[in-house]
Amino acid sequence: MDGVLYIGSRLVPGTSGVMAHLRTRRLRIGFCSNNSSKSRRDYVEKLAAMGIESEEKEIVNSAFATAMYLKENNRIPCRVYVIGGKGLLAELSAAGAEIADSGGPGVDFVVVGFDKDFTYNKLMEGFRALQNGAEFIATNRDATLPLEDGIHPGSGSMVAALETAIGRSPLVIGKPSPYSLLRLVEQLDGEPATTMMVGDRLETDILAGKEAGMMTTLVLTGVSTREMAESADASMRPDCIIESVASLPDVLA
Amino acid sequence: MDGVLYIGSRLVPGTSGVMAHLRTRRLRIGFCSNNSSKSRRDYVEKLAAMGIESEEKEIVNSAFATAMYLKENNRIPCRVYVIGGKGLLAELSAAGAEIADSGGPGVDFVVVGFDKDFTYNKLMEGFRALQNGAEFIATNRDATLPLEDGIHPGSGSMVAALETAIGRSPLVIGKPSPYSLLRLVEQLDGEPATTMMVGDRLETDILAGKEAGMMTTLVLTGVSTREMAESADASMRPDCIIESVASLPDVLA
Repeated sequence: MDGVLYIGSRLVPGTSGVMAHLRTRRLRIGFCSNNSSKSRRDYVEKLAAMGIESEEKEIVNSAFATAMYLKENNRIPCRVYVIGGKGLLAELSAAGAEIADSGGPGVDFVVVGFDKDFTYNKLMEGFRALQNGAEFIATNRDATLPLEDGIHPGSGSMVAALETAIGRSPLVIGKPSPYSLLRLVEQLDGEPATTMMVGDRLETDILAGKEAGMMTTLVLTGVSTREMAESADASMRPDCIIESVASLPDVLA
Repeated sequence: MDGVLYIGSRLVPGTSGVMAHLRTRRLRIGFCSNNSSKSRRDYVEKLAAMGIESEEKEIVNSAFATAMYLKENNRIPCRVYVIGGKGLLAELSAAGAEIADSGGPGVDFVVVGFDKDFTYNKLMEGFRALQNGAEFIATNRDATLPLEDGIHPGSGSMVAALETAIGRSPLVIGKPSPYSLLRLVEQLDGEPATTMMVGDRLETDILAGKEAGMMTTLVLTGVSTREMAESADASMRPDCIIESVASLPDVLA
C-alpha cells in the first residue's frame, strides 16, 4: 500500500476518488502489504484515518499471511519465537500459536519480521532455537522500509543477520512469494485470472502478481520507474504502467 | 587464537610447553585474532591469565588492524560511527579516530565488529551514516563466534544486516584478508616467506596465510577437519596438518 495508496501518512492525490469509484462499480478491492509490523485491524484503522473504508477480510499483510500459512499447513498448535513487532505477535497469537519468550528447546518456528526493538539478544535467542531444530520463516525480505521520517532498514536486514549466523535460508511468506496475494483473492471469493495487482515494486509486487497468475499494473509513485519496468526481465514486466493509482479506472475500463 | 591455543578459557593441552619451547629457540611469536571485541592489552591479560606471556606488539586482532588501516592510509583524523564493543572503540580512539555518537552528517566511516549490545537503533544510525556517504568497513565477517557458553552469532551477522539495508559491501580488514597477518609480521621485523601461520579455519586463517605468502599449518582443535583440508580448494589447502598446537615443534623442526 505504501508507495501506491499513500506515501508515509499522505494519500497519493486522487486515491480517495478512485477508491470510491471502484466501490461504486462494485469491484472487489483487496489490500496487500509486505509490512509485518501491523495487524489487519491496525490497517483498517490506518486506512480509515486517511478516509479509505476497508474491512479486515480485504487485508492481507505479511504478518497475517504468516499466521495463515501456519494454520493452513496444520502447524497450529505450535511454539514460535518471534523477532518482530506487536502486529506480528497479535496475528500469530490470534491464529493459535504460542509465543515463546526465548529460543530454548521446544520452539517449532523462528519467525522474523520488522522489529524496531531488535537486539543482539533476540538474534542470539533466534539462533539458539534454529540450532535446536526450529524451522526458519521470514515474513518478508524487504531490505528497507519507508517510514514517516525516511527510509529505514527493513525486515530483510534482520533476516540476513540470522541467516548469516545459522547458515541456512528462511521460507519467505511475503511478496515476491504469491502466497499472500492468493490468500487475499480467496478471502474475497475472487479468481487470480480476473484480478488486477497494482504495485510499485517490480521485484516484489509485480513478480508476485505474475506468479499468482494475475494481471499487473505498475504505479510510478513508489520505488520502481518506467525505465526499470521497460528493461525488466519478463518475469516482472507489468502489463500496464500508470503514473499513479488515480489513473486506475483507465486500465480497468 | 581461539580453537588453536585455547577453547573458551581452557588451554589446549601442551600449549604452555610449546610456547616455552618456541621462546627458548628464540623464534618470534605473533598472535592474530579476528575477534574485534578486545583490545591488544585485553589479549595480553587474557593470555597471561592462562600462563602465556606476550607483549602488545606480538598481537594483532581485527580491532587493532582496523585502527592501523585507517592510520596507514592517512585517514586519521576522522569521525567513525562504530557498531562494536569496548575493545574496538579503544583501539580506534588510541589511533586518533573520533567516535561519533550518531550517524548524522560528518561521519567518515562506519566500522562494524562484534557487538553484544547491537540494536535496531545502531543499525539505523549506521545506515544513516552510509546514506550520507560514509565508507563502510567490517573488522571481519565471521558468521559465528565461540564464547564460554557456546557458539554465538558473530560480526558477520551484524555486517550482513547493514549490508542488506544499504545494498553495498564493506571493506573487510580481518582474515581472510592478509592485512592483519602482514601487519603482525612487520611489527615483529619478520618476513612472510619465513613465517608459519598456524590456524584452525581454512577459509579465514589458512586462506589469509597463503595470501600473505606464508607457510601454513592447520590444527584440528578448532573448526576445520582433516577431511575438509584434504578436499579444500588449493587457495586454502594448508602445507601441514597437525592434531594440535602441541605438535608444532615437529613441523618447525
